[in-house]
Amino acid sequence: MSDVKKVVLAYSGGLDTSVILKWLQDTYQCEVVTFTADLGQGEELEPARAKALKFGIKPENIFIDDVREEFVRDFVFPMFRANTVYEGEYLLGTSIARPLIAKRLIEIANATGADAISHGATGKGNDQVRFELGAYALKPGVKVIAPWREWDLLSREKLLAYAESNGIPIEMKHRNGGSPYSMDANLLHISFEGRHLEDPAAEAEESMWRWTVSPEAAPDAAQYLDLEFEKGDLVAIDGVRMKAHELLAKLNELGGKHGIGRLDLVENRYVGMKSRGCYETPGGTILLRAHRAIESITLDREVAHLKDDLMPRYASLIYNGYWWSPERRALQALIDHTQSTVNGSVRLKLYKGNVIVVGRDSKSDSLFDPTIATFEDDAGAYDQKDAGGFIKLNALRMRIAANLQAKKGK
Amino acid sequence: MSDVKKVVLAYSGGLDTSVILKWLQDTYQCEVVTFTADLGQGEELEPARAKALKFGIKPENIFIDDVREEFVRDFVFPMFRANTVYEGEYLLGTSIARPLIAKRLIEIANATGADAISHGATGKGNDQVRFELGAYALKPGVKVIAPWREWDLLSREKLLAYAESNGIPIEMKHRNGGSPYSMDANLLHISFEGRHLEDPAAEAEESMWRWTVSPEAAPDAAQYLDLEFEKGDLVAIDGVRMKAHELLAKLNELGGKHGIGRLDLVENRYVGMKSRGCYETPGGTILLRAHRAIESITLDREVAHLKDDLMPRYASLIYNGYWWSPERRALQALIDHTQSTVNGSVRLKLYKGNVIVVGRDSKSDSLFDPTIATFEDDAGAYDQKDAGGFIKLNALRMRIAANLQAKKGK
Amino acid sequence: MSDVKKVVLAYSGGLDTSVILKWLQDTYQCEVVTFTADLGQGEELEPARAKALKFGIKPENIFIDDVREEFVRDFVFPMFRANTVYEGEYLLGTSIARPLIAKRLIEIANATGADAISHGATGKGNDQVRFELGAYALKPGVKVIAPWREWDLLSREKLLAYAESNGIPIEMKHRNGGSPYSMDANLLHISFEGRHLEDPAAEAEESMWRWTVSPEAAPDAAQYLDLEFEKGDLVAIDGVRMKAHELLAKLNELGGKHGIGRLDLVENRYVGMKSRGCYETPGGTILLRAHRAIESITLDREVAHLKDDLMPRYASLIYNGYWWSPERRALQALIDHTQSTVNGSVRLKLYKGNVIVVGRDSKSDSLFDPTIATFEDDAGAYDQKDAGGFIKLNALRMRIAANLQAKKGK
Amino acid sequence: MSDVKKVVLAYSGGLDTSVILKWLQDTYQCEVVTFTADLGQGEELEPARAKALKFGIKPENIFIDDVREEFVRDFVFPMFRANTVYEGEYLLGTSIARPLIAKRLIEIANATGADAISHGATGKGNDQVRFELGAYALKPGVKVIAPWREWDLLSREKLLAYAESNGIPIEMKHRNGGSPYSMDANLLHISFEGRHLEDPAAEAEESMWRWTVSPEAAPDAAQYLDLEFEKGDLVAIDGVRMKAHELLAKLNELGGKHGIGRLDLVENRYVGMKSRGCYETPGGTILLRAHRAIESITLDREVAHLKDDLMPRYASLIYNGYWWSPERRALQALIDHTQSTVNGSVRLKLYKGNVIVVGRDSKSDSLFDPTIATFEDDAGAYDQKDAGGFIKLNALRMRIAANLQAKKGK
Repeated sequence: MSDVKKVVLAYSGGLDTSVILKWLQDTYQCEVVTFTADLGQGEELEPARAKALKFGIKPENIFIDDVREEFVRDFVFPMFRANTVYEGEYLLGTSIARPLIAKRLIEIANATGADAISHGATGKGNDQVRFELGAYALKPGVKVIAPWREWDLLSREKLLAYAESNGIPIEMKHRNGGSPYSMDANLLHISFEGRHLEDPAAEAEESMWRWTVSPEAAPDAAQYLDLEFEKGDLVAIDGVRMKAHELLAKLNELGGKHGIGRLDLVENRYVGMKSRGCYETPGGTILLRAHRAIESITLDREVAHLKDDLMPRYASLIYNGYWWSPERRALQALIDHTQSTVNGSVRLKLYKGNVIVVGRDSKSDSLFDPTIATFEDDAGAYDQKDAGGFIKLNALRMRIAANLQAKKGK
Repeated sequence: MSDVKKVVLAYSGGLDTSVILKWLQDTYQCEVVTFTADLGQGEELEPARAKALKFGIKPENIFIDDVREEFVRDFVFPMFRANTVYEGEYLLGTSIARPLIAKRLIEIANATGADAISHGATGKGNDQVRFELGAYALKPGVKVIAPWREWDLLSREKLLAYAESNGIPIEMKHRNGGSPYSMDANLLHISFEGRHLEDPAAEAEESMWRWTVSPEAAPDAAQYLDLEFEKGDLVAIDGVRMKAHELLAKLNELGGKHGIGRLDLVENRYVGMKSRGCYETPGGTILLRAHRAIESITLDREVAHLKDDLMPRYASLIYNGYWWSPERRALQALIDHTQSTVNGSVRLKLYKGNVIVVGRDSKSDSLFDPTIATFEDDAGAYDQKDAGGFIKLNALRMRIAANLQAKKGK
Repeated sequence: MSDVKKVVLAYSGGLDTSVILKWLQDTYQCEVVTFTADLGQGEELEPARAKALKFGIKPENIFIDDVREEFVRDFVFPMFRANTVYEGEYLLGTSIARPLIAKRLIEIANATGADAISHGATGKGNDQVRFELGAYALKPGVKVIAPWREWDLLSREKLLAYAESNGIPIEMKHRNGGSPYSMDANLLHISFEGRHLEDPAAEAEESMWRWTVSPEAAPDAAQYLDLEFEKGDLVAIDGVRMKAHELLAKLNELGGKHGIGRLDLVENRYVGMKSRGCYETPGGTILLRAHRAIESITLDREVAHLKDDLMPRYASLIYNGYWWSPERRALQALIDHTQSTVNGSVRLKLYKGNVIVVGRDSKSDSLFDPTIATFEDDAGAYDQKDAGGFIKLNALRMRIAANLQAKKGK
Repeated sequence: MSDVKKVVLAYSGGLDTSVILKWLQDTYQCEVVTFTADLGQGEELEPARAKALKFGIKPENIFIDDVREEFVRDFVFPMFRANTVYEGEYLLGTSIARPLIAKRLIEIANATGADAISHGATGKGNDQVRFELGAYALKPGVKVIAPWREWDLLSREKLLAYAESNGIPIEMKHRNGGSPYSMDANLLHISFEGRHLEDPAAEAEESMWRWTVSPEAAPDAAQYLDLEFEKGDLVAIDGVRMKAHELLAKLNELGGKHGIGRLDLVENRYVGMKSRGCYETPGGTILLRAHRAIESITLDREVAHLKDDLMPRYASLIYNGYWWSPERRALQALIDHTQSTVNGSVRLKLYKGNVIVVGRDSKSDSLFDPTIATFEDDAGAYDQKDAGGFIKLNALRMRIAANLQAKKGK
């Protein structure tokens, strides 16, 4: 247990990862490097530095990075190119952040000469898998320390006792039990699991939700929105071009205001159990509808269907932690290839929880041809008689079979 | 063109199919049998009988059938077992009614000794394919007459002139242009295409929608709803068991009241063009969410994923008119096999366009095991250490590859 | 480690499982029940009884079962209905036997009141997974003892020393190192792994192969064969109806004689590594070709393609040990559904490693319609002009796209 | 029928296309451009020039191109990267040549200002679809003339009479009925359809086969062969680097000599009927086995499985004529992406119809790691205990379900 020399810890600065930090120092007698990421979760990160210093972490071993632009540009947007949804509903807000954290942990390990990484994910969840599959794929010899699978601090009481006896400050909320939920947040979503939600028949409490007002509390007036896409990625809102992470932040603001993006579901974890989760994904919910809409006029039918057929598999890969796998990259090659024509704009209406597509347009790449689709006279652009042959040949195999059945019936 | 002796016409009693009726009599000099189906479209059907009689159709050749229960029980519900959605959005309201009509046309042809069928679908749309593939699959030697692909009445003016000169009554609405939309309705949905909608960038007019109020006009108070499922099919609403078609009608009423189920999209037709359609599917929208929710606690993960992977293909089969094909039946065998455990109830909240799942429960078949999923101590039901091995073996192939890359990098 | 009361061991009577038997008695101080299956591996099983008695196993705890018919009828044949091949080549001979053994282990555990099962598969292979997934799926609370993952007898020397010191007879072949290969055999195949084969670039030695002569050594005269199928299953060879296991044994004999069914490949194990394996599957190789051939005239095109699309997934499920999973059962429902028309006969020619299909016929279910497929005049059975419309509509989406590209090019 | 000014004809110089040439001149009164391609079919092409001149074709309108290298490099090899096989058996020899011909027809049409193309494929087959889908995709406004769907020369007698009365020389073989088979040849294969083969139960005559000796007639001595691959493409045989088409020609020679690559099957045509075909694909049969073998050690498991899952769809696209479709290109992007590591060599043994893989090696990209796969002590490269956790977590969902079933059983 003691062959670790230096470990990079995914460190939030909160109670749990602070206990882990101390526990790593005690248990492994090793140097600890902390990595704290700004993924847009909306928390101050500098306090993490102060705390790390208190634990004796060397200043050069404290990494606090703003990865918001990288997160949205290189992870969230590529995923949305596939209209990715896990199990018909979940927008993968937590799943898509983990591979970025894994990558940074390994980059920092390489930069600091660390031989191990550590994280605060439990042994029952998906996040341990996502962190560790990423780490192993990027640095196959790395040692992974997953304290929740190793230590004996499995109850909250033991954890608090350990913190107290080691001088780790416990904020009042933790003493009082704090939030009843296990939460995770980044620019794409905030998630809630545990406690009250462990009965899948029980309705989530209104007070749980943080980023969105309830549809009831949303404005009584709808708001219209124009989203512009280039190569399948959002580039502008209402004509204003922004950086990727600014765009998503803006959509979150708008969606949150209009009560958009709440989700309450039971999902199947990779480790084999069902789990109830509630999610707020205001911006992502808007983005998904809009991306589908711009594809609807710019993507070939069979390409769109191919993407739809592959999407659940791609979603599972991300959910299960295989972002850095060769099969995810191969699928991404296909997905990205299809997006070159996905250019244009979508007009949406936001109202009390609804994202309503009201129009879509592409000056450069619309495959919608009104001269053909029209119910009016099309001046010969389409010969209706062709349809007879089309149907007859498509029916042929079934006619042959039915003929045979008829003969057998005699 | 004259080797047809008796033709069964899918007859709505409206102007278009009345013109077709007369045109068939004139052009083919054949006996016409009319079939008018009550699919829950919400129109009086008896006037169709009077009109048919006026055209000289023999009473025994006039078939007016209430097929609502068959429609929902044998077509809509089986389709919903697969959570079927075409191109991510469309609930297939028109597509799923066509195979039933095709089947009845053939049954009536067999009963009356007819050698042909006819319908009023145009040569540009999907419905001609759906009618005709069904007819050919069920009666391979049947002759199909598709007047819109044969005649020269392609403009509305010519059609009206033909009607006038043949004494076919033209209601005022037709003289004035009538509805600007091409519409289709049955218990699952009402659809709108054409005219104003042919510009995909233009917002649909509020006045177009018929079955649902706008979310804005929906009640300010949410309504809760309990849906009960047996073997994947809805059997009761708020504890009241009803027939299949009554259940869907009830959901339509509730959904319509709460502004639920409007859809505005551009879809890819089987005949090769993109087309803009607007749909109101209030009951179906509720049913889809609820069915997914009950599956979420009663269906095995891999079975659910298998269904998700196959769903787009199954949806395309229905959209393209292959309900009566052997491949649709094979997929149905799989889908139906999976539904034996899909028993339980779902609690929903309807509010201004939103269908919100707030709880799901299954006394008999819940695979949600709180003793395992809990964040609390699970008394050994799950050994967190197992996860380490699970991850290591899943990572092995990626580690071997990364080792090789590392060696090559040197 | 000692909470096991009674364990059912998959016992071959060989050295390894004899050591395991003794080790279980010593280590767990528990009662041992032995299960020895006749899967057609071609070994005497009664010696296993004598050996078990020597270890003090009670007579009523010794189970020696002839499961050949069940094996072929309920496992091999259902798998062949899907034309199942793993990674394009491997006929799954070992994989398909494991779920039957798992099932019998659990049945015997239930009958004898045992709380555990044990097997001799190593910690690196697929078989441990197949045994244990099956066991857990059928008896979720069962305890599994996998000695190779627990003990310290990992080298052959230690194993022999343990045997010697415990009075377990070591046959001369084991003293001399015995076969250099790790082997497994049943009615479907015999497999070879390890030692000489661990270099994937090295050719397997001719002396390794056991069931088949080399193509070079096979008869110079070809042999013709008629195979008859009912509902996708082989029922007769050259007009002689036999039991399922007799049919496969007969095909093995014929294939072996003609040098058919040798395979040398590198496969991907479920546990994450690549592994080189050599297989002899004489009967299965013949059966696969013949089944595809009878399907070629009796199965609808789209059904056949659906099966082809799903086959790799189904094959992976079996390879990975998920025979008893709900997703394998769901796929089987689809596969079995498709086989009702797979009736008829196939004529084959066997010659020096080749299985050549020379004819196929189905009196009852042939969809091959010579009046349509003919290059000669078909008397109007097929209207060639239909093809023009068929092509035009299938091309429409690509023409629209090309028109757009042309416009952009200007 | 007469709005065609100039038409490019796919012209073989044979009787049928000569009749078409004349018929086009007579019927459409248009200028004809001839295109004759050397695809390695093994026929003299210069006679086609003389014949075309006789019909009054202007010298600058006669195109005779050697496209062998382009054919193998840009069509055959990309297809083999996917291990492409249609319906489990057919190597797509005809299908893959058609898109190249379609492309050249359009290029020549563009170069010569032609507004139409024409070909000699019948209205019942797949080739008309392949030619025309390609043409429409590449030049959406092109007019396609398919004489076999238009004219009344459907019987051989009428065709010969037309030839005679128009001074088209009829070789003796045609007078005598010529080959009873409809044939097509190029560097990848030669195919046979029609006449004697129209009874799927009848064995093909030995005299039919042209490129391969029978296995019986093949040499009694086996021949070993080393194939070297780079990025998934064959680059050298026995150490000799050659151009793509030379490599395939060499494999054809070797395969033909050893009786390799004969195939007799019933396939499902895109136009809806089943059809019996016999094929000789000597080089392709060798290449397919070798490519799978080199992938077996250089491709990640999940990438290989993804390719296997998509292969049938990719094969159908090519078979059905969709080479130039956007969905084929999207799949190709994925396939090509995966081939970067497919480097190394495969050792084969050819003997009387058998292609036997005896070894595979990759200095740069082998993922076969003997230190892990070994049955011997691996010095800790793999911890067997990890497998326990791996299995337990993979079994978890099935255990939960089985627990529920057990409870229900009570």
